[in-house]
Amino acid sequence: MYRTHTNGELRIEQAEQQVTLCGWVQKIRDFGGMTFVDLRDRYGITQLVFNDTQKPMVSSLGREFVVQVTGKVAERQSKNLNIATGEIEIIVSTLTVLNKSKTPPFTIEDETDGGEELRMKYRYLDLRRNPLRKNLELRHRLSMETRKYLDGLNFLEIETPYLIKSTPEGARDFVVPSRMNAGQFYALPQSPQTFKQLLMVSGFDRYYQIVRCFRDEDLRADRQPEFTQIDCEMAFIEQEDILNTFEGMVTYLFKTVKGIELTEFPRMDYATAMEKYGCDKPDIRFEMTFNYLNKETQNKEFSVFNQAEAVIGIVAEGCVSYTRKQLDELTDFVRRPQVGAKGLVYVRCNEDGTFKSSVDKFYTEADLKTWAEKCNAKAGDLILVLSGDKAATQVQMSALRLHLANELGLRNPNVYAPLWVYDFPLLEWNEESGRYHAMHHPFTSPKMEDLNLLETDPGKVRANAYDIVLNGTEIGGGSIRIHDRAVQSKMFDLLGFTKEDAQEQFGFLMNAFEYGAPPHGGIALGFDRLCALFGGQETIRDFIAFPKNNNGRDVMIDSPSLISQIQLDELNIDLKVI
Amino acid sequence: MYRTHTNGELRIEQAEQQVTLCGWVQKIRDFGGMTFVDLRDRYGITQLVFNDTQKPMVSSLGREFVVQVTGKVAERQSKNLNIATGEIEIIVSTLTVLNKSKTPPFTIEDETDGGEELRMKYRYLDLRRNPLRKNLELRHRLSMETRKYLDGLNFLEIETPYLIKSTPEGARDFVVPSRMNAGQFYALPQSPQTFKQLLMVSGFDRYYQIVRCFRDEDLRADRQPEFTQIDCEMAFIEQEDILNTFEGMVTYLFKTVKGIELTEFPRMDYATAMEKYGCDKPDIRFEMTFNYLNKETQNKEFSVFNQAEAVIGIVAEGCVSYTRKQLDELTDFVRRPQVGAKGLVYVRCNEDGTFKSSVDKFYTEADLKTWAEKCNAKAGDLILVLSGDKAATQVQMSALRLHLANELGLRNPNVYAPLWVYDFPLLEWNEESGRYHAMHHPFTSPKMEDLNLLETDPGKVRANAYDIVLNGTEIGGGSIRIHDRAVQSKMFDLLGFTKEDAQEQFGFLMNAFEYGAPPHGGIALGFDRLCALFGGQETIRDFIAFPKNNNGRDVMIDSPSLISQIQLDELNIDLKVI
Repeated sequence: MYRTHTNGELRIEQAEQQVTLCGWVQKIRDFGGMTFVDLRDRYGITQLVFNDTQKPMVSSLGREFVVQVTGKVAERQSKNLNIATGEIEIIVSTLTVLNKSKTPPFTIEDETDGGEELRMKYRYLDLRRNPLRKNLELRHRLSMETRKYLDGLNFLEIETPYLIKSTPEGARDFVVPSRMNAGQFYALPQSPQTFKQLLMVSGFDRYYQIVRCFRDEDLRADRQPEFTQIDCEMAFIEQEDILNTFEGMVTYLFKTVKGIELTEFPRMDYATAMEKYGCDKPDIRFEMTFNYLNKETQNKEFSVFNQAEAVIGIVAEGCVSYTRKQLDELTDFVRRPQVGAKGLVYVRCNEDGTFKSSVDKFYTEADLKTWAEKCNAKAGDLILVLSGDKAATQVQMSALRLHLANELGLRNPNVYAPLWVYDFPLLEWNEESGRYHAMHHPFTSPKMEDLNLLETDPGKVRANAYDIVLNGTEIGGGSIRIHDRAVQSKMFDLLGFTKEDAQEQFGFLMNAFEYGAPPHGGIALGFDRLCALFGGQETIRDFIAFPKNNNGRDVMIDSPSLISQIQLDELNIDLKVI
Repeated sequence: MYRTHTNGELRIEQAEQQVTLCGWVQKIRDFGGMTFVDLRDRYGITQLVFNDTQKPMVSSLGREFVVQVTGKVAERQSKNLNIATGEIEIIVSTLTVLNKSKTPPFTIEDETDGGEELRMKYRYLDLRRNPLRKNLELRHRLSMETRKYLDGLNFLEIETPYLIKSTPEGARDFVVPSRMNAGQFYALPQSPQTFKQLLMVSGFDRYYQIVRCFRDEDLRADRQPEFTQIDCEMAFIEQEDILNTFEGMVTYLFKTVKGIELTEFPRMDYATAMEKYGCDKPDIRFEMTFNYLNKETQNKEFSVFNQAEAVIGIVAEGCVSYTRKQLDELTDFVRRPQVGAKGLVYVRCNEDGTFKSSVDKFYTEADLKTWAEKCNAKAGDLILVLSGDKAATQVQMSALRLHLANELGLRNPNVYAPLWVYDFPLLEWNEESGRYHAMHHPFTSPKMEDLNLLETDPGKVRANAYDIVLNGTEIGGGSIRIHDRAVQSKMFDLLGFTKEDAQEQFGFLMNAFEYGAPPHGGIALGFDRLCALFGGQETIRDFIAFPKNNNGRDVMIDSPSLISQIQLDELNIDLKVI
């Protein structure tokens, strides 16, 4: 060992002890006679003291040098109560430079001066900063506690293969050419879905895996081509059992990792979520739910509302005094192409009981009062109204709701509001391909009571599918699976598979269903996102040790890269001439 | 929940309770008036009893049907003390068939009638068998306890990327064409080596990961293209610290997972291992070490020994009565091309104190007595002697030693003898490429005291490298790494890299060494192999849920497979016309 202690552990009780420490030079402060050096490692910072005669020793040091020092623990004259070692310092007797450092391209501080690109290139230096270190420590803690919880419930972690088979359903696969099977390819898994179902057929009954998954998608901000899932499956269970087990897990994680007791874990069906929030992953840290004002607004002179399938109002509490400019900004917001509304109607619920709206031409004060009553708006509130096609207006209003909540500070990252959303539709119509796509995936079971709709009105069929939502972000989703060959085959028909394609791609699973497949279901949680939410942050990138940029590149190791002609030849592939 | 209990948990104390169980039909025994059904799940077997009137109910059942039964727990008349639930049975009131089963292609029993190929194709059925289930349960337990041990020592599990960069040093990479970066490829990691070293540069000081690795090698028996490692790295440590930490881990695993106290964990340098066992991973469950008989055998009339660089004898204890046939078989064994010896000399140490050898023409009884004394052979033993080029003879004798030990039953899989082998050579000469290759990998540090040999006699330089060996199998290996740019650069020179190639492939690591890289080192343990050894078995395949066959194929999902022209086009690659 190069050291007797870390830089986070010495206390006043160790005074007079001889110790050896190692770490990085964080800061050098020259006070004439004395020089103080802050020595940093993963565990903390310890102050080193050098006297006048040791000047030459210290003067060779620079920021981020790695050193080993021996010395005596002493009580500090001026204590720093902000850090755990702040009552002591080390009177250094010997110092060894273990390795020098060039001047880092950005400062290794909580707030750094380095830009995104530079920090990605020198990721190994960025990871020295406290915020990133703490993120990875949090990630480790979350994975340990997840395993403890599931292990305690008799779940087995079982590793499934990474070199599997490409199937066109779902997102685009990354593929791996096989050298030993010329012209053939493995695919990297988008999830271990079929394998975990086979494990249920095998009788493992409670499976989990913290597992890497891969999707070759065009990367939007904060998407990674490889990401980590907490992947789980259970047999002989119903939806209720899954919800209980995994709200138990999230509650346990909050308690053990963050010391937070989640008191509520509400459940809401998909239809209600869309009706009240216009969104299948509502942020329920605040209310601001939708009020349908069709009855109150239509059949007056205002043709926009008269023609609208839906007129939806939300209440911005205490915002009656929003200025013209603020209201214009909200209108601009809803008119952005990403939101797509044509305009925004407002009603001020004045403190004196009167109302003032942007549609006063068409509506009386009495009319507006009925709106306010319908919306439960009180004096001092502001009502905002959108209208049009119902589905589109719901989505637009959901965007406005979140925008307003951000403005009003209603989305405190240190408040946590989990939610189950269930009874999702089984299928969604895809205009581009002219067929139904599975909303969750092709292995999700339809609700028994909707089975008769499968032939007549497939879009109306509900699935035994559920999402777990935290603060308006979907952190996981799952379903009760099909475990019957005939139903699975029917599902592939609906999704436009030929019998041959279905058999070729998923024959192994359908065959397995013929040998005593038990009822089963599961869930997968996005682990990167879960870590970010636990860290109170928005972006997942800082919770991944070595992430890729938006072009899927690792700029530190400079990957992907060219490979040799020998490699291409061995793999029996050529590059296309472009 | 479909059940109130599992099939492993009911005891006599629960008699008279109403319970609901689920599981697979293992066996149906019709005793006229009564029918007994063994119901199986992961947790055990419970006996169900059906009476005469329930015959129609039972007659619909078949092996591997999945059923749900409700009934009353009752004390059995004839108890089965071999199983945990053997004191009770269930008097069934209702039975529901949850899913039928076709007749499985092989019996789901501890000893099955299915061949390897068939069992691989129906892996989900093979995994229902107790031996395989127990293997995966053991694997889960080992991974949990590994994490507990390392977490307790402040190691952080940090995930490193799977989509990295291809580098030609080492084995062949699997590569992944990048769609977004036409003509470029990711590689799947052979190990997270460079990333874990960068984490040390970042200050994480104790890292581990149970991680998948990939090698596109021609598969020998019991090699898998994807395999799992316990991958670890520490900073501010010396070799001694690594050895202590990880022999601690192995000792902990034996204790917690198998209830075995390892009392010894010897250490042996590479030179001694080669001298005494002719092998860098000796099985030390038994002695039978090498005795060098040059002095005693040479300069007599026997030209074979006279010309030999080494004459090596081992003692087969108590084998004096080996028959002519047995000795011929041993001679045939050493003459096999895989072993490559020319012949085998034996000396019987008779019970009456006389000696009889296959070279009596050349050696007197007195001569043979000196051999026996040198070998510590006693009356009743058999001495076996090989000779020739020293290195080759050591390897041949090592093969004979293991062969004999197998014959003599000295390799009991339930006895565990761990061992560290250290001070491996840094480099080995490769005839084919006409250059030195790194014996461990290019990041391994040379021993300081051998540094002067790097220029003059590189083959003689020893490395700070060590292997952990269990029962003659290498279960892991590691080294203290280079953490100095100049030394790393020098190493790439020795390995025949141009400066440009070294910079292009490993520039990121060498650059990182310039920003305060701490001294560090680590180890990686083969997790599949560790599981197999803990399971007392030879082959790793049965400790992997979904392994590939020797052609790298998954015969269950039929992968690798063809992909579509659309996929090829998007990836900018063509198949070569063969």
